[in-house]
Amino acid sequence: MVYKKITLIGTSDEGFDAAVDEAVDRAEDTLDNVKWANTENLGVEIANADGREYQAEVEVAFELDE
Amino acid sequence: MVYKKITLIGTSDEGFDAAVDEAVDRAEDTLDNVKWANTENLGVEIANADGREYQAEVEVAFELDE
Amino acid sequence: MVYKKITLIGTSDEGFDAAVDEAVDRAEDTLDNVKWANTENLGVEIANADGREYQAEVEVAFELDE
Amino acid sequence: MVYKKITLIGTSDEGFDAAVDEAVDRAEDTLDNVKWANTENLGVEIANADGREYQAEVEVAFELDE
Amino acid sequence: MVYKKITLIGTSDEGFDAAVDEAVDRAEDTLDNVKWANTENLGVEIANADGREYQAEVEVAFELDE
Amino acid sequence: MVYKKITLIGTSDEGFDAAVDEAVDRAEDTLDNVKWANTENLGVEIANADGREYQAEVEVAFELDE
Amino acid sequence: MVYKKITLIGTSDEGFDAAVDEAVDRAEDTLDNVKWANTENLGVEIANADGREYQAEVEVAFELDE
Amino acid sequence: MVYKKITLIGTSDEGFDAAVDEAVDRAEDTLDNVKWANTENLGVEIANADGREYQAEVEVAFELDE
Amino acid sequence: MVYKKITLIGTSDEGFDAAVDEAVDRAEDTLDNVKWANTENLGVEIANADGREYQAEVEVAFELDE
Amino acid sequence: MVYKKITLIGTSDEGFDAAVDEAVDRAEDTLDNVKWANTENLGVEIANADGREYQAEVEVAFELDE
Amino acid sequence: MVYKKITLIGTSDEGFDAAVDEAVDRAEDTLDNVKWANTENLGVEIANADGREYQAEVEVAFELDE
Amino acid sequence: MVYKKITLIGTSDEGFDAAVDEAVDRAEDTLDNVKWANTENLGVEIANADGREYQAEVEVAFELDE
Repeated sequence: MVYKKITLIGTSDEGFDAAVDEAVDRAEDTLDNVKWANTENLGVEIANADGREYQAEVEVAFELDE
Repeated sequence: MVYKKITLIGTSDEGFDAAVDEAVDRAEDTLDNVKWANTENLGVEIANADGREYQAEVEVAFELDE
Repeated sequence: MVYKKITLIGTSDEGFDAAVDEAVDRAEDTLDNVKWANTENLGVEIANADGREYQAEVEVAFELDE
Repeated sequence: MVYKKITLIGTSDEGFDAAVDEAVDRAEDTLDNVKWANTENLGVEIANADGREYQAEVEVAFELDE
Repeated sequence: MVYKKITLIGTSDEGFDAAVDEAVDRAEDTLDNVKWANTENLGVEIANADGREYQAEVEVAFELDE
Repeated sequence: MVYKKITLIGTSDEGFDAAVDEAVDRAEDTLDNVKWANTENLGVEIANADGREYQAEVEVAFELDE
Repeated sequence: MVYKKITLIGTSDEGFDAAVDEAVDRAEDTLDNVKWANTENLGVEIANADGREYQAEVEVAFELDE
Repeated sequence: MVYKKITLIGTSDEGFDAAVDEAVDRAEDTLDNVKWANTENLGVEIANADGREYQAEVEVAFELDE
Repeated sequence: MVYKKITLIGTSDEGFDAAVDEAVDRAEDTLDNVKWANTENLGVEIANADGREYQAEVEVAFELDE
Repeated sequence: MVYKKITLIGTSDEGFDAAVDEAVDRAEDTLDNVKWANTENLGVEIANADGREYQAEVEVAFELDE
Repeated sequence: MVYKKITLIGTSDEGFDAAVDEAVDRAEDTLDNVKWANTENLGVEIANADGREYQAEVEVAFELDE
Repeated sequence: MVYKKITLIGTSDEGFDAAVDEAVDRAEDTLDNVKWANTENLGVEIANADGREYQAEVEVAFELDE
């Protein structure tokens, strides 16, 4: 059994939980057998006029097919 | 005065704040003089059928009796 | 173009998102051209009788005037 | 010449050398021009009844086609 | 559900796999519900006349009773 | 909006700026919506007879399609 | 032979050597076979009126009974 | 003698040496007794149409007046 | 409540405790509500003829006015 | 008593234990009073036709003569 | 086959590439079988009147004779 | 101008300042042009009957002859 990890950055205008969820949602939409995730960085993009964008950099692990 | 630090991992199906709180709750239920906590890692356990489990690894410091 | 980064610690009795927001609010109240922020540490101050204080150490970047 | 690095987690019930090898085997089965690997983390999954699973998180580098 | 992590250093005159196993064995002998382990450091004690002692510093996580 | 990060190692016999550029060039040739890059490591491969090869390990972030 | 490591924070109003010593003293008062210690962090608590409190976070290793 | 360190991010469309120099130039324009600098991060902003912006995060130390 | 952290490097020809104290003294002379400090680096400047200069890089946190 | 540490990279086509041993062997062949070693990195060189070369970067400490 | 790594700091008044090259040049002038190098730190010495000195801390690996 | 850095561990039964000094003394006794030092680790060896041995791991930089 071999797992692969990829790095996604989810974004949300609500908060960090929602940003992590968006990254995990994306992984589950496009990959089979997603197993766990680790939050690597939490940031906020502030410059734009339409408010703050919360960003969560997440490593997502999934099991590869044999 | 000497403090001791222990490492707990709180879990929640709601989000990271609740996971941190569960770890701190546990420390306060079983230890006197809990003083502060530091979040070390935030992860998500995804594999199980009943949804995501948010996990917060937390170092909790408490004051030892003289 | 040169940016400067400063380190603020926002606090909240609600949770980490609110603590990060308080730090960013403070930066925006006193600085022009705040661009982004990075969360460096998340902690909880527990000792005081009036409950938990969530603390978020945040690096905030802003653009300096030419 | 450009290389790409991916992160794989090999598993074995024998030990860490075998877990690293499984990750590298997988990389060589599916990628051309695999060049080197770095071990990032070594862990053990203990919970399951059928013994310990040694896990090696490995970054594998391979040369991209021009 | 709350987990606790403790840090053990297993030793062996055979090699690192055996040193990790000794630390995990010790955890399982004295704790219920041991779940996983992470290798933090691998060292060798060389000074003594009776050969090399391989040392593996391991963080072991176990589930606390409710 | 979700971003993905991949790790490339650009190489050059001129210097580190050119090595970083080669990695970013490669990313832009094969990916849409490349947004930013971070230099993780700078190394020099010296062994070969035809001089020094400067190597820049670079994390490149790009926006995924909705 | 298995060692265990615990994390203590010694405090002193004299300086860091005394703060480290207080943590090691505490370990030796309550544990057998204390072997070595590593200083992880050195801090100063300044807020209180009665002067500075030097704090040394120390990992202490001791040998477990067979 | 006490030094203070601040964090600046210099930018350039030429390369990293020029980005570091811009940060140091800025420090020297606005501060007396600038002594040394350390490069903390090297990044590239790619999104904008007018080419790549090289960014160098630099800690700059200067001597405070007595 | 928002705290700000700044980085000072205290120096002394006596030792590290005195170097830390000089940095904290400086902070307290020029800032209100200094709360705590963390030692980040300890170094020695040796080149000069008049002996060794002990240097302590210290992060100092203080509470900002509302 | 003063110790010195040097960094060696042992290699083996068998596995990581043998690679660490080769580095320690080399240290003991050429230095007196070798005391302990720490494994810093574990890698695999894959490119060559004659199989995998396991590499262990090891810091070796030895006591200097008075 | 065993490699040894040493740490050199090259300096240049031109820029970081030249500073790295000076360290590698020095290694090649005095050592056989220099194989690769890793840049660990990039700094700038600013205090002196004759301009900026770019400094590159470099780990250089070379193969030891059998 | 090229500097070299070596790693020494000074020991003392008095405290950490004395342990750092012993490492720097040793460097100055055997090397010309010692310039600066950085403290990497502070530890305490406790096992022996004759009290505590304070240990300071120190990187020492010196200028190489042209």
